[in-house]
Amino acid sequence: MAGITPGEQVLFYHDERLHYLRRVLEKGDFECHKGRIPWGQIIGRNYGEVVKTHMGTSFTLLSPSLADLMIGVKRRTTIAYPKDVGYMLLRASIAPGVRVAEVGSGSGALTFILARYVQPQGHVYSFERRPEFLEIAMANVARLGMEEFVTFELRDVEKQGFGVRGIDVCVVDVPEPWGIVPHAAKALVCAGRWVSLSPTTEQLQETRKALGKHGFTRFEVWEVMLREMLIRPQGARPRERMISHTAYLAFAEIAEHNHDASNAQQNIDNSPADNRLSLQDEESSL
Amino acid sequence: MAGITPGEQVLFYHDERLHYLRRVLEKGDFECHKGRIPWGQIIGRNYGEVVKTHMGTSFTLLSPSLADLMIGVKRRTTIAYPKDVGYMLLRASIAPGVRVAEVGSGSGALTFILARYVQPQGHVYSFERRPEFLEIAMANVARLGMEEFVTFELRDVEKQGFGVRGIDVCVVDVPEPWGIVPHAAKALVCAGRWVSLSPTTEQLQETRKALGKHGFTRFEVWEVMLREMLIRPQGARPRERMISHTAYLAFAEIAEHNHDASNAQQNIDNSPADNRLSLQDEESSL
Amino acid sequence: MAGITPGEQVLFYHDERLHYLRRVLEKGDFECHKGRIPWGQIIGRNYGEVVKTHMGTSFTLLSPSLADLMIGVKRRTTIAYPKDVGYMLLRASIAPGVRVAEVGSGSGALTFILARYVQPQGHVYSFERRPEFLEIAMANVARLGMEEFVTFELRDVEKQGFGVRGIDVCVVDVPEPWGIVPHAAKALVCAGRWVSLSPTTEQLQETRKALGKHGFTRFEVWEVMLREMLIRPQGARPRERMISHTAYLAFAEIAEHNHDASNAQQNIDNSPADNRLSLQDEESSL
Amino acid sequence: MAGITPGEQVLFYHDERLHYLRRVLEKGDFECHKGRIPWGQIIGRNYGEVVKTHMGTSFTLLSPSLADLMIGVKRRTTIAYPKDVGYMLLRASIAPGVRVAEVGSGSGALTFILARYVQPQGHVYSFERRPEFLEIAMANVARLGMEEFVTFELRDVEKQGFGVRGIDVCVVDVPEPWGIVPHAAKALVCAGRWVSLSPTTEQLQETRKALGKHGFTRFEVWEVMLREMLIRPQGARPRERMISHTAYLAFAEIAEHNHDASNAQQNIDNSPADNRLSLQDEESSL
Repeated sequence: MAGITPGEQVLFYHDERLHYLRRVLEKGDFECHKGRIPWGQIIGRNYGEVVKTHMGTSFTLLSPSLADLMIGVKRRTTIAYPKDVGYMLLRASIAPGVRVAEVGSGSGALTFILARYVQPQGHVYSFERRPEFLEIAMANVARLGMEEFVTFELRDVEKQGFGVRGIDVCVVDVPEPWGIVPHAAKALVCAGRWVSLSPTTEQLQETRKALGKHGFTRFEVWEVMLREMLIRPQGARPRERMISHTAYLAFAEIAEHNHDASNAQQNIDNSPADNRLSLQDEESSL
Repeated sequence: MAGITPGEQVLFYHDERLHYLRRVLEKGDFECHKGRIPWGQIIGRNYGEVVKTHMGTSFTLLSPSLADLMIGVKRRTTIAYPKDVGYMLLRASIAPGVRVAEVGSGSGALTFILARYVQPQGHVYSFERRPEFLEIAMANVARLGMEEFVTFELRDVEKQGFGVRGIDVCVVDVPEPWGIVPHAAKALVCAGRWVSLSPTTEQLQETRKALGKHGFTRFEVWEVMLREMLIRPQGARPRERMISHTAYLAFAEIAEHNHDASNAQQNIDNSPADNRLSLQDEESSL
Repeated sequence: MAGITPGEQVLFYHDERLHYLRRVLEKGDFECHKGRIPWGQIIGRNYGEVVKTHMGTSFTLLSPSLADLMIGVKRRTTIAYPKDVGYMLLRASIAPGVRVAEVGSGSGALTFILARYVQPQGHVYSFERRPEFLEIAMANVARLGMEEFVTFELRDVEKQGFGVRGIDVCVVDVPEPWGIVPHAAKALVCAGRWVSLSPTTEQLQETRKALGKHGFTRFEVWEVMLREMLIRPQGARPRERMISHTAYLAFAEIAEHNHDASNAQQNIDNSPADNRLSLQDEESSL
Repeated sequence: MAGITPGEQVLFYHDERLHYLRRVLEKGDFECHKGRIPWGQIIGRNYGEVVKTHMGTSFTLLSPSLADLMIGVKRRTTIAYPKDVGYMLLRASIAPGVRVAEVGSGSGALTFILARYVQPQGHVYSFERRPEFLEIAMANVARLGMEEFVTFELRDVEKQGFGVRGIDVCVVDVPEPWGIVPHAAKALVCAGRWVSLSPTTEQLQETRKALGKHGFTRFEVWEVMLREMLIRPQGARPRERMISHTAYLAFAEIAEHNHDASNAQQNIDNSPADNRLSLQDEESSL
């Protein structure tokens, strides 16, 4: 019950427009354009307490959610957002105990979330071919306390393969996911899962072809949209603006005995001639 | 490496329209309108293998995802879908080690997912006031192997409170969530989180009022929409139909020292006069 | 003030689930599974009056909207829906006095709407290469009283061109719109407009290329989604299901002096490197 | 064939980010941050021609669409956007020859569109209770050449009624539409139509109640969402951001012989107990 300690992430929350995610420091001040507060006055407080800047603006000290931390980590352009990653967890069974391989560490935001959800017994192998990104990702994951559950490696998976086997789920966040497919087919356990994130439909078509060629089945693509509702004394309505697109999520599963290419391709392409699912079927896809 | 064993859930997958989630039995047959396969021919196989019915239709034996299992559990009307629960996990920090209280066990579908994600060190307290639902929920959670991580209780939380403290997150899936709010305020840890699911905007308004009165802050409501993309040799396009509404997700966090009602209410209602967030702000809300 | 007369379309409205669009006949009965009413008892009534079947179900006699009629006309698969056509009208300036060429008469549903909005001084030229569709379209447009404003022609526009000039707007609803582009470039007036409807992104890419090659500029693609809200005493919420995709709408305008292909292609492809519009810009695109 | 003349609206189009809607003046220069062009060099040109500023930036001279003009008129906050108005036209049968009453002239943007679509034989009665808005609306409609088809009146319809009868469609764009309902019931022809635009669900509930009390039936509420697709050589994908909410559109029709309040209220509220429409029904609602 020692309260907030240095190194923790704190969300200084005033209202929906005025809030800051900050890492608590040993000394110096929390600062924003509404004033400052010495860190010494924050350390030892409990989450939920209210503090005031020297200019009189009050902030509630909140514990940032995993979604806040994921967004906060973001340092470079990314396409993985909490809305997408949340659905990915359930749809690809990324959960405690699972072994995940991530291709494209990026800034480490997604790596952090994957590690947080597979720990303590699962593990994340995170591959990145650009040294400068790998460094950022490692630092971000360490700062958030998840380094124990992640093995980072500087590696061009398209050229060198995964170098590990027995992977339950491959999460692929690179511009050309199709180059990763043949290696994923080898690294995955029986019926292991493929997830990739791509912003364009052309990328999805290439990914579909490669997955079909390498023994994957149940190829599905989903888009997650998140809309805020404003529930206020003056009335309830959606917010006027929203993020309308981040990435499409592609899912597939490896069918070991489908390794004969022509057969597998057929399995992916042989969608019903009339592609309208009955409602019953559609519902079960949710 | 003993392969598929009795009691496991298997997804018999032919294509996007023809697939079945079934529990493997000791004896008898898997049966569907495309024919049957003796369970004895399935037990011991590996996931990913292909089997054929006596009528010649082939199915790949896939391991159902958590989303599949969640949908499969569903026995009665529910409003919690994988798309909603996925976002809820990240937005409310429901992750390994967390203590969750669920109000409204329903059919146990959500209970199962919560347990799967907080285990092994976390725990779920699941309250249900209708004995017949509680029984179904307990059976479903046991069947999916998560009973160790769930404490079920027949309890009318609105009247009797939670009976536990130190809860990190309350997940409320009942028609009148506002009746649960005063009890949640007591059961939650400092800065603990509230999540509720409601289909109508009137429910959200009542929930907002109750949360404001009982010391909660950072009230936000989000709607998750999931759209399938069909990526086929003949072209890429969204599916023609989709589920357009399941529930709105309401989030809030308890601010311990805000227990003075008037102050807290102000905290929730005092949204900026001009309610258009700058883009920077909107992005950080994702 | 003679009231309802034979040949008119009437919407028999009981509630949102029970309603029928029917053409009034000289004799015989209106019939549905809730009973029947002799047409003689309907002729001469005013719209808004309530009638009862012999089984006691009451229906209000409503005048169908243009959207109702458009949907009612539909006999074969179509991708043009009122939601799409409504936006098309404003975005492509299809309004009284305008000369429109429609490529692909289909069932005549879109032809009817175009005619209804350009009359009395405008005109629609509607081209169809399949005689059996042309016949249906002509019959439907005549039945709805718009034949005076439409010139139908059995014509393969891709091979034979339009055969008319001075067209203000080309509306193209065929699977390969790019084959129509070179002909449209000749048939349109200065700065005349192109609209095409296509379900897949591949079709849009081909259309973009053809438009760029033939002197069109301001290529934009929009998707219109329509969601119903249920506003009921028990609460307000979106309907659970919706149509999530019909067609993408592609728009462009011919730039006469851009006929030099390389120049024009550049004009269409030269989208800003950073393709995020500022909000101000995005708003002005609505 | 005199080409562009003073007083016309011209869209100076460079690319999707750089374009200006301007009224051609007799003298002086078109000016923007990319340079200027004397109006004298634009007058007499044809639409579709390309002009260059003194700084070398080229613009194609396009004829603005009705959607462009509607957005361009906007001077004060509005909730009527082309996407909404387009659907409203078809759903409420606003077309050549129709008599429309608009309550709330606003800036005249919607008035202009209504007039453009009902002319030459139809007419718009536009009521506004704030003199300063009425003046702006009248000026905007005159500037766009539609004054002949609009009768403006400074009038508080809630207090004074419409003062006209035989109206086919009432279009209501005020914050409290329910106050207009009793007057609309009198002004409308048999089975005449109601359309109102409201941003919040609370407004929709009040509107529903008033409509039910005053003999309206077939109450429906729709929301139109418009998403841009970026179709580029580097790939096809939705734009990252969109307008997610402007207003909900409420529709109803007056049933003359339903004027007995209790009966009518029942007619609006008596939605089916199971409020899931069959797909067939849903489709016919589009």
